[in-house]
Amino acid sequence: MTDPRKLPGLEPLRHVGRDRIRPDARAKALGQAEYIHDIERPGMLHGQVVFSAHPHARILHIDTSRAERLPGVRAVITAANTPEIRIGFLRDNPVLKGGKVRALRDEVAAVAATDPEIAREAAALIDVIYEPLPAVFDPRAAMLPDAPLVHETDGRGRPVTSNLLPVRFRHDSGDLAAARRASAHIAEGTYTTPLIQQSCMGTAGCLAEFDPSGNLRIQAKTQIPFLAQRDFGRALGALGLGGRNVRVTVPALGGGFGTGLDTHAYEYISILLAWRTGRPVKVLYSREEEFSALSPRQSSTVHITQGCDAEGRLTFRRVRVLQDNGAYGGWGATYPSVMLLPATSLYRVDCVSFDAEIVYTNNTWAQAMRGYGNPELTWALESNLDELARRAGVDALAMRRLNCNRSGEVTPMGLKVGTCGLAECLDGTAERLDWPGKRGRQRHLRRGVGLASLMHVGGSGRIYRSDGSGVILRFDDYGNVYVYSGGVEMGQGLHAALTAATAEAVGVLPEQVFINQTDTATCPWDVGTHASRGAFVACNAVQMAARALRAELLGAAAEVWPELVGPPGAGATAGDLDLVDGLVTARDQADQGGQSGPAVPLGKLLRALHFREGGRMFTAQAFYEPPSELPDWSKGIGNMSATYAYGVQGVEVEVDVETGDVRICKLVAVHDVGRVLCPQALRGQTYGALAQGLGYALTEQVHTHEGRILNPGFTDYKIPTAEEMGIPIELAFVELGDEEGPFGAKGVGEPGLVPTAPAIANAIYDAVGVRVRDLPITPEKLLAAIREASHVSK
Amino acid sequence: MTDPRKLPGLEPLRHVGRDRIRPDARAKALGQAEYIHDIERPGMLHGQVVFSAHPHARILHIDTSRAERLPGVRAVITAANTPEIRIGFLRDNPVLKGGKVRALRDEVAAVAATDPEIAREAAALIDVIYEPLPAVFDPRAAMLPDAPLVHETDGRGRPVTSNLLPVRFRHDSGDLAAARRASAHIAEGTYTTPLIQQSCMGTAGCLAEFDPSGNLRIQAKTQIPFLAQRDFGRALGALGLGGRNVRVTVPALGGGFGTGLDTHAYEYISILLAWRTGRPVKVLYSREEEFSALSPRQSSTVHITQGCDAEGRLTFRRVRVLQDNGAYGGWGATYPSVMLLPATSLYRVDCVSFDAEIVYTNNTWAQAMRGYGNPELTWALESNLDELARRAGVDALAMRRLNCNRSGEVTPMGLKVGTCGLAECLDGTAERLDWPGKRGRQRHLRRGVGLASLMHVGGSGRIYRSDGSGVILRFDDYGNVYVYSGGVEMGQGLHAALTAATAEAVGVLPEQVFINQTDTATCPWDVGTHASRGAFVACNAVQMAARALRAELLGAAAEVWPELVGPPGAGATAGDLDLVDGLVTARDQADQGGQSGPAVPLGKLLRALHFREGGRMFTAQAFYEPPSELPDWSKGIGNMSATYAYGVQGVEVEVDVETGDVRICKLVAVHDVGRVLCPQALRGQTYGALAQGLGYALTEQVHTHEGRILNPGFTDYKIPTAEEMGIPIELAFVELGDEEGPFGAKGVGEPGLVPTAPAIANAIYDAVGVRVRDLPITPEKLLAAIREASHVSK
Repeated sequence: MTDPRKLPGLEPLRHVGRDRIRPDARAKALGQAEYIHDIERPGMLHGQVVFSAHPHARILHIDTSRAERLPGVRAVITAANTPEIRIGFLRDNPVLKGGKVRALRDEVAAVAATDPEIAREAAALIDVIYEPLPAVFDPRAAMLPDAPLVHETDGRGRPVTSNLLPVRFRHDSGDLAAARRASAHIAEGTYTTPLIQQSCMGTAGCLAEFDPSGNLRIQAKTQIPFLAQRDFGRALGALGLGGRNVRVTVPALGGGFGTGLDTHAYEYISILLAWRTGRPVKVLYSREEEFSALSPRQSSTVHITQGCDAEGRLTFRRVRVLQDNGAYGGWGATYPSVMLLPATSLYRVDCVSFDAEIVYTNNTWAQAMRGYGNPELTWALESNLDELARRAGVDALAMRRLNCNRSGEVTPMGLKVGTCGLAECLDGTAERLDWPGKRGRQRHLRRGVGLASLMHVGGSGRIYRSDGSGVILRFDDYGNVYVYSGGVEMGQGLHAALTAATAEAVGVLPEQVFINQTDTATCPWDVGTHASRGAFVACNAVQMAARALRAELLGAAAEVWPELVGPPGAGATAGDLDLVDGLVTARDQADQGGQSGPAVPLGKLLRALHFREGGRMFTAQAFYEPPSELPDWSKGIGNMSATYAYGVQGVEVEVDVETGDVRICKLVAVHDVGRVLCPQALRGQTYGALAQGLGYALTEQVHTHEGRILNPGFTDYKIPTAEEMGIPIELAFVELGDEEGPFGAKGVGEPGLVPTAPAIANAIYDAVGVRVRDLPITPEKLLAAIREASHVSK
Repeated sequence: MTDPRKLPGLEPLRHVGRDRIRPDARAKALGQAEYIHDIERPGMLHGQVVFSAHPHARILHIDTSRAERLPGVRAVITAANTPEIRIGFLRDNPVLKGGKVRALRDEVAAVAATDPEIAREAAALIDVIYEPLPAVFDPRAAMLPDAPLVHETDGRGRPVTSNLLPVRFRHDSGDLAAARRASAHIAEGTYTTPLIQQSCMGTAGCLAEFDPSGNLRIQAKTQIPFLAQRDFGRALGALGLGGRNVRVTVPALGGGFGTGLDTHAYEYISILLAWRTGRPVKVLYSREEEFSALSPRQSSTVHITQGCDAEGRLTFRRVRVLQDNGAYGGWGATYPSVMLLPATSLYRVDCVSFDAEIVYTNNTWAQAMRGYGNPELTWALESNLDELARRAGVDALAMRRLNCNRSGEVTPMGLKVGTCGLAECLDGTAERLDWPGKRGRQRHLRRGVGLASLMHVGGSGRIYRSDGSGVILRFDDYGNVYVYSGGVEMGQGLHAALTAATAEAVGVLPEQVFINQTDTATCPWDVGTHASRGAFVACNAVQMAARALRAELLGAAAEVWPELVGPPGAGATAGDLDLVDGLVTARDQADQGGQSGPAVPLGKLLRALHFREGGRMFTAQAFYEPPSELPDWSKGIGNMSATYAYGVQGVEVEVDVETGDVRICKLVAVHDVGRVLCPQALRGQTYGALAQGLGYALTEQVHTHEGRILNPGFTDYKIPTAEEMGIPIELAFVELGDEEGPFGAKGVGEPGLVPTAPAIANAIYDAVGVRVRDLPITPEKLLAAIREASHVSK
């Protein structure tokens, strides 16, 4: 979109913003990318985890003797014969469970064998005798005074008296009672979201091995190689290997979506098995294990009340969240940290009250997924906003325009909004939906349009004390630049962004950029690839390092320039020389496209500077730490990101009132991305997010019964396929630029899936006048709602 | 040895010069180090080279059809179906030979198959029809006007008329005729050395693969990863892949000794096979192939004349070298570049004439080996010097002392001698041999003592236009330092040196130093590990980078020092803080051993600086280019090294005059190493060199008949074993320090084997009064010499 408010600096660039085949595309398309599944090591063993048979039980005895006797078995480990390692940020999760199990996916033993089939067979031969305990699966029930305690003690061994997790996210600003009294209209509702799977195409796995000095190398499907390095290093302490080094290398990832934000019991199990056997040990989850023993996105209940004045201006927002955490605390427990963003800061509202309760149950524990708590909260907020608009008699789009966030504002949470393109996104979506022509005008066709907005961190999200990212850039003799970054390419296109940013910032062609494998031994520290931060922080670091690299190179270039171009260029100084697309020119020539005057290929210059007495080579590094604040979570205050991304999605639906089927006629996504770094990667990321949003809205749900996953595979768990996505989709990107963003870009990894579900719910209401507040909006639920509405209206 | 001339700065250091287990020791001792033999890749094929059946022949036809039909064969390549790639610095060596073969080890075809046995079987099924040509195996015969031409054209296709290689190394200083006339005594002789094998315990091999974009990754047993990257990159041009990237990674090496200085036909063959098949292809040489198809140290003939005045002062030295190059030009052809050093600069002699002729023959072509031409030249020089001393009636030790090199002198070649410990080495050796008590006094026992000196490059050896080495040092959060160096650990102990130097220069403990794998993708450029340069250049680069790293860290440390240590340390500034052994202290406390006042573990400081707003991390890099000159080889002038190493070896022998057996009673080696970096590695390197010197002197010779290697294995090729080395050996190191050396150290990789053979020959003469001038000094030769001498004396 063109926009009159584009920053003055937002002129077209040479490589940033240009379509180009992703650097990882060919290897992935040809099956040559190396996933953890493909990697073997000499002497490698295969690990198999044994899971609990009960959701809550005391372990009375584990008999491993039959398993140990099976030929090919090299080790059988349990809590009884290994040191205790407690993981998770609450340290409430022993890698191997000893005294009791708290969920059906609890790891009670593991086997290493020469062959995966032997390992599975041995696992089946392990006899565990349990004494079942009363279990609790419903978070409301878990909060009752007489509920069974999932944990009798906290991570430090202190007794606890309830199933509430000791983490709290609250926010209170303004006088809620007064604001409520002053409101002309109020809408209130409870909106729920299901347990869903991240559905990575590549299942989880790792390969651990020790060198003879006790240093660990682990190849892991992780999004946080450097935090994992720290966590695994702590575990080494339990093995008497404190101070030894941990090297984490990251193979090609078949999707991350948050699954790689925690370190997992299976990773520590591979470490324990490698330590026990002295051999490399790979643990690889099957699809069924991925569903039943890795952590999904948790279910949640959001109760929201919003009020507005007579014109539709928001007066207050009250949010109460109840989150089923499952049996152990992973990062999923901190979803409310991100819920705070839209709760306090999506649309302008001065009076906000937010509180969240996170409850242990005997369900599978939940971890991060794309968007963190944002989709859950936005589902409630944007559904409820349409309800409020209806009560106020205000057009839903007009109400959003009226309350729209603005560039430069500071929100109740203390978020310092840089550029805000929400208004442009609203207008762009409405235009593409033909909002005036269609909204409220197609009920006779059972068709409707709806939209919903989102805001999200767009400049990293500070949830650790460091949110930084380092980069090293190194020239070889041929004009190539090697990029060392700790960021993780998991399919989202980080390497495409790094390639474009490096080419642009250094002044080379994209094919001259080579990105090294992510490896804690060779790459500078990075906090991890999450919170839509990957490209934002890494490309900022690239810009910093590139400035240093260019300055050093062009400064030195002046020394040899006369040798290279002869007397006419002899007068060139560092200030005169420029490097563009791998050619060094005197700057006036560069302005003329290098057509007149001498242009020296970068490689030639580099060799001239290198191959002589006193020769030099050029390497530069930078560490970028975004100017953000670690919020005070108990107050819900703090500018957690360096900038914020906005977006709006719209949808046109047609409802079959006989079957309850919802047909998506058109999807529109208009996002404020600051600046497009890599169109192909951005489109891919947005399409993928729309697919996830569609699944979240209509089909995806992990069904459980007493903690057991009932549909652990893609036969019974329905993600949108190419067929479902073969619908008209219109994407547009608002480019206002951002002062802190690399080349003006904001982080855009997560937003795409955030507002899809409420947009669909709002469109369904527009089509048939009923609202389902419980995701997914299945045909059964919708049909029931339609029938109930028709009963009511009859 | 203690020495009064020690540089003032040569005080004991904390880690440099201390005995410590080498960082590579455990993995190697436990069989966990990964050699090229151990590495496999998914889908990997095995390559087998087909060698010529004739030493000189026209290839009339190659029939590959039977080989192609063998199940499991994936590709058969010949010159006919691959682009021509010419290798070697003269570009005279096509990777696959087309028109004619010039030696029995010529590569005429190659096969890639799913299994090494299938590959060997297929290779045997390739039928080549040859038309034999007259061949020449003796370099003297090859210089006759009617000799068959090995090459009819040079590397650029221009016709040639002789077998002389187009490389010349000469030196002439002083008036030779006048000096000869002014001499009181003259000794003249011809000294020959045999073809020998480098005898790496790990045979040669590589593993090449392409990514889908045509970028090459090759894991290679090389000493020159970055020059190999350039060479392989050129080859990609022939495949239409110009500009693609080459990544060279270096696995653990089971010895290098110069074999890895050239890139080899088998490496390009693996590249061609990988390119042809789209699969990773490994080529691994058997021991027999290593002997018969890899390049050995060539045989040479050195004719030397030296004169002295009545007191024994050297008046002139005339050297003529004839070198059998074999059929193609590898770096072995440039041995005379290093012969120039001792010829012009060992002992003070103003008048020197040097010339070398290097001749193509139909023998196997020769490559680099430890010491380059130095052992050959020193064999002649130091044998002849004893002969001259005898003629002059001067004690051999006294004569060497009289002509001894001195610190600060400039030699006829223009070598700028920094510190020179030759006198100390002579004295130390004589003392350990009991020279006055034994020299010339044990002939009745058939026992004798002898010694010989050496000089060598000790501060890198500039044979390329860059002689530089880069390093990156990076701190993690735990106080560890990662070292990125392009130098190659091939068993010599480079990583031990890097560990000690990094610990010392940065201020951490050796166990906090981790050295990354040598890899052109992640390590800065280094010209290669040769010319005794590895530790010298890499540790110099480490010192430079460490200074930058410390400065940046301690500067930043002052900002958080008060937080870490409280008010008493609040006044500390960057200048006050010190980092020693991984502890940060205020400098006055450091002086007191850190016992009083606060000492902050480095990791804690690093985390304090990292995990805060505006956090920082610390990485530094440096590129060290030694202050040396690329000599003008046609004049033999140029200060090719930043410093020079000296040493003396002495030996006591007992000769069995019935059998000709020589028993080594004692070996003494005293070397001027500037400063000992790693005692264990230095001793290991010196022991190994003494073993090689002993083999060179007494037992090692590759026997050939019409170009065919007759003893391609350790059954018939005799290297000294642990049994032969179980003799009294005394090592001593002279530490005068060196201004350019890292911590004062000189390079010492090669010297150990240089003077061993002449020391033994001189001792044998002292024992029995006869001299063998043709290495190795076998019992047969010695017995013949003794019998001839007794005939003469009878």
